[in-house]
Amino acid sequence: MTRTAFFISDGTGITAESLGRSLLAQFENVEIRMITKPYIDSVDKARALAEVIEATAVHDGEQPIIIDTIVDEKIREVIRGAIGFKIDIFSTFLAPLEQELATHSSYTVGRTHSIGKDEVYMDRIHSVHFALDNDDGAHTHQYGKADVILIGVSRCGKTPTSLYLALQFGIRAANYPLTEDDLDEDGSLRLPRALAAHRHKLFGLTIDARRLAAIRHERRPNSRYSSMDQCVQEVGQAEGLYRQMHIPFIDTTRFSVEEISTRMIAEMGLTRRFSPR
Amino acid sequence: MTRTAFFISDGTGITAESLGRSLLAQFENVEIRMITKPYIDSVDKARALAEVIEATAVHDGEQPIIIDTIVDEKIREVIRGAIGFKIDIFSTFLAPLEQELATHSSYTVGRTHSIGKDEVYMDRIHSVHFALDNDDGAHTHQYGKADVILIGVSRCGKTPTSLYLALQFGIRAANYPLTEDDLDEDGSLRLPRALAAHRHKLFGLTIDARRLAAIRHERRPNSRYSSMDQCVQEVGQAEGLYRQMHIPFIDTTRFSVEEISTRMIAEMGLTRRFSPR
Repeated sequence: MTRTAFFISDGTGITAESLGRSLLAQFENVEIRMITKPYIDSVDKARALAEVIEATAVHDGEQPIIIDTIVDEKIREVIRGAIGFKIDIFSTFLAPLEQELATHSSYTVGRTHSIGKDEVYMDRIHSVHFALDNDDGAHTHQYGKADVILIGVSRCGKTPTSLYLALQFGIRAANYPLTEDDLDEDGSLRLPRALAAHRHKLFGLTIDARRLAAIRHERRPNSRYSSMDQCVQEVGQAEGLYRQMHIPFIDTTRFSVEEISTRMIAEMGLTRRFSPR
Repeated sequence: MTRTAFFISDGTGITAESLGRSLLAQFENVEIRMITKPYIDSVDKARALAEVIEATAVHDGEQPIIIDTIVDEKIREVIRGAIGFKIDIFSTFLAPLEQELATHSSYTVGRTHSIGKDEVYMDRIHSVHFALDNDDGAHTHQYGKADVILIGVSRCGKTPTSLYLALQFGIRAANYPLTEDDLDEDGSLRLPRALAAHRHKLFGLTIDARRLAAIRHERRPNSRYSSMDQCVQEVGQAEGLYRQMHIPFIDTTRFSVEEISTRMIAEMGLTRRFSPR
């Protein structure tokens, strides 16, 4: 039996969905279809959505779960009137918070908030362009301005991680590929010259060789680049370098980009320029 | 008087922080210092943090606000023991949800969840590389595979938006710059040839000319490119094209990247390949 959950918001829906998914992830044995409905910012939109909710209840034979962060009282009332099991985040927590902070919230006053943007806009633009300009070792002369320099073999996840750090936290992340150009005579990797002066900024990424081969195979099928032998060798050399040089590193096979980024921030003590929304 | 809020998690802290910021944003007249503490996944780490919380309470002269999503009962108890005004998201909502779903949650069983990753990993990699390969009109032959094609003048926010859509939702977004190359004799913009076959995928971005001039000025100071006259003209031509061709568009001056992306998804009915965490 499948249940349906609606995450409803008068804004982006990011908070309602984030909380909703976290809560429902605790129920692994229940199949739940999750639907996000952002920008429900008028009574008309709420009425149309209430009809969808009613139809879903009939279809499922069970009342949907409704998790909302709507601020406007009139709009909220329409959703409240629909059949559903309701989790009202704001009304649950804001009343006790108002008491603790001894003041009224905009919520009880009925004012909607837009996401603050001016303060983060320029930092975001800068950080994203920094990540792009310094992707894949393209330039190394800006490493003095980098907050962190990600290193690792080709296609181990450096670029998505650099971009996530830029977009979500305003962190300036360069990334540099470890390649055979930096192999010593004994077959071990040495620290590329461009990185030597920035050792305290280095963070290594590694990856399961099988996953790496699969990813590379999609790019260049049946090449030496994507062969299992080559991947095993490169990953071994990279991890050898990290260990020898005491460079902290993380396995991107085991973690999501969110986890890699937040662990890196915690481990290296990086300062975010702004906060995720 | 400044209060302190701690967002505490045994994982990334994204849910606790997202909810915490949403709740506290409703109290504009209270100055609140917000601190996220992810990966509090051992009793020792919790004890060290509890000491920080106690010291903060003494320093502030007020108990901190504590918003947590810790699953492990032993770790949670340590934090619970600290001085603070506690908002316990999971215990508040999971008990009623357990009743509604007629089953126990992993939370009450005490199991921690990692963020699902395998299912999103490849989609993410693909989408990010799609955005990069198709940034700034670099290629146009892949537009058949694009979910959306962002258009707009140089530096209006196309690249950060494309990358956000890729990282958070797995949406394949190309972007194409509107330039003077596509001006008609009468001084109005015509739809670039590469875009004509994909009109239903087009989404326009516009920007306040003053903001645009400031952004461009940082890149090329005192140039024609960054002059107010030039910016006013280009923005006017772009908006003229959107209106004439009935291309939906949004003003990036007024909205954050999160808002632009989620509004675009809603307006164009785009399908996410995965969900934000």
